[in-house]
Amino acid sequence: MQTICVKTASAKYDVVAGSGLIGSLARRIEKIAGKLPRRVFVLTSAPIWGLWGQRVQQSFREAPVVLFLPPGEEHKTLASVEKLLRHMAQAGGDRGSLLIAFGGGIVGDVGGFLAAIFMRGIPYIQVPTTLLAQVDSSVGGKTGVNLPEGKNLVGSFHQPLAVFADIGVLGTLPDRELRAGLMESVKAGIIRDRALVRFMEEHADEVLGRDPKALEKVIAASIRMKAGVVNRDEREGGLRMILNFGHTVGHALEQATGYKTLLHGEAVGWGMVAALYLARQRGTISRAQFERLERLIHLYGPLPPLKLRAAKVAAATGVDKKNVGGVRRFVLPLGIGDAGVVEDVTAAELESAVRYTLGRSGERS
Amino acid sequence: MQTICVKTASAKYDVVAGSGLIGSLARRIEKIAGKLPRRVFVLTSAPIWGLWGQRVQQSFREAPVVLFLPPGEEHKTLASVEKLLRHMAQAGGDRGSLLIAFGGGIVGDVGGFLAAIFMRGIPYIQVPTTLLAQVDSSVGGKTGVNLPEGKNLVGSFHQPLAVFADIGVLGTLPDRELRAGLMESVKAGIIRDRALVRFMEEHADEVLGRDPKALEKVIAASIRMKAGVVNRDEREGGLRMILNFGHTVGHALEQATGYKTLLHGEAVGWGMVAALYLARQRGTISRAQFERLERLIHLYGPLPPLKLRAAKVAAATGVDKKNVGGVRRFVLPLGIGDAGVVEDVTAAELESAVRYTLGRSGERS
Repeated sequence: MQTICVKTASAKYDVVAGSGLIGSLARRIEKIAGKLPRRVFVLTSAPIWGLWGQRVQQSFREAPVVLFLPPGEEHKTLASVEKLLRHMAQAGGDRGSLLIAFGGGIVGDVGGFLAAIFMRGIPYIQVPTTLLAQVDSSVGGKTGVNLPEGKNLVGSFHQPLAVFADIGVLGTLPDRELRAGLMESVKAGIIRDRALVRFMEEHADEVLGRDPKALEKVIAASIRMKAGVVNRDEREGGLRMILNFGHTVGHALEQATGYKTLLHGEAVGWGMVAALYLARQRGTISRAQFERLERLIHLYGPLPPLKLRAAKVAAATGVDKKNVGGVRRFVLPLGIGDAGVVEDVTAAELESAVRYTLGRSGERS
Repeated sequence: MQTICVKTASAKYDVVAGSGLIGSLARRIEKIAGKLPRRVFVLTSAPIWGLWGQRVQQSFREAPVVLFLPPGEEHKTLASVEKLLRHMAQAGGDRGSLLIAFGGGIVGDVGGFLAAIFMRGIPYIQVPTTLLAQVDSSVGGKTGVNLPEGKNLVGSFHQPLAVFADIGVLGTLPDRELRAGLMESVKAGIIRDRALVRFMEEHADEVLGRDPKALEKVIAASIRMKAGVVNRDEREGGLRMILNFGHTVGHALEQATGYKTLLHGEAVGWGMVAALYLARQRGTISRAQFERLERLIHLYGPLPPLKLRAAKVAAATGVDKKNVGGVRRFVLPLGIGDAGVVEDVTAAELESAVRYTLGRSGERS
């Protein structure tokens, strides 16, 4: 078990990564928050709750009120939020209530947002059940939902009281989701942690084989990287921007495919390939580094093939919400284990990076 | 012109009260926020914008994007919020955008909430155009909307960059709204400012006659009282609770009348009568103080008559969201200019206070 402390301007809390956490969840929460309040809510999805609900519930003396969010990005909406908030009000929720988000990234984002806006803010706990949520979305306090106009356009920064990343629940995670989640760990290594890059290169079999020790090491290192960045920059003033490595083209790919054919981690995987190509062209990484890092991405693949036109993808980067005032920002690696932000990427550079990426997808499919 | 500084744990900003502010709004905002961003949004309502929109717009070099919220509590919903957020996204809003809430309390609450959750938070300016909004809702950073289950059950704490309370725009405010808004000033005096109580007693004619000097004095004193409380307690830990004087029964009256027959300030006026009666019964104010304060409330009336059963009103206090863990909290004045919170009000005490209030309403109607 490893504990990583997250410190932001507005809050301080622990992220615990280890095995067997959910069986003692109530006791662990009481250690942090004191006696449990009159109303504890659990937001989850039916498939996840079917697998783990009983074990979670057994740790509580009084059964929590369980709220269900149907699986799928299409339910990450203000309409779902309204329905759930009404349910909370009807069930007697008040300002002292506590919410536990038990599920993947969507449950975490929606659960955090419910906690952020119910009665103008109640405390909450993140219990991420996918690898992606464990290493990425459950740390940093970003919460929110989509609009028809774009993903995550609505939300709050609301830090949890604690995050419990239970490696045991990953046992039932589909292989594709495991691999997609590991893309965020690859990202963590490339932008901030050389040792993690090496570990993931050398222990791919154990990691993909879900060896608990190997997984704990990768997950804890990924969380530690993100916590380190968030600690210094809660609201994306500058440093936090580097966490978007692979995300500019990644989001464009998700958008161009209607959020249907790619998992988020897979889109980020291809987005990193594009960013690496751009970095190689600009000389911020060497040819050898480029090849080594692209190999690492495919080691944790396979990434699904892309059937898209380069111009369409390049155009889709224009609506990325990271573009403050219309500037096209890009995170590029500086060697291995460091990264910086550039704002002067031209349309031509972008298109050639996208073209390379689509070409690689064709070769590998 | 008077400037009151609000300092909370999360922000520091000025509330400016005076005449002729909206004609120089853009320049005033630039003095605080620097150069205006690419997209400035104004949330307002059609009647208010019809009266003052041109004057506001003339102060901007580039016309802001105007968003309209239909008047009425029934539009203070998540559905309205979603529509407005989509409009903002479609109009090219980004994280650097600025929102101006130009209108009464509902526009302020919804505008602040839009700013709190669009792109996980953008800066905003409050320009309250009703007396109630000027003295109460525009200070303190409370934002939000209603659910069918109750008022203001959803929202955020999000502090504005500045508040401009223009006394000039009160010229077109209906008399009934002016009087209702002044109930919050009466409240301010009772719980925290003896001098304001005296001023309002001695200058009722000037205040109700909209003499700018008298109004500025009452408005600035009310804002100063609220700012003083919010400065010490942003999130209603303890002290801020006293701002709810008159609101427990006030909210119950609003709810029992379906939010249709009473303005918020009027409900608070009757709620203060009930709380004063309770305080008198418990001896936290003398009989003379009770009579003096009740007289002051009616001086700024008339309050509309109430046609309700006492039991129904008393029951409606049970769902007040201030009741953490089911305790029935009440703010009671301690003499004139001070107040405290009690948690042990019995159902019988409450009912007799409500019965007195309904009786007074009958005598006066």
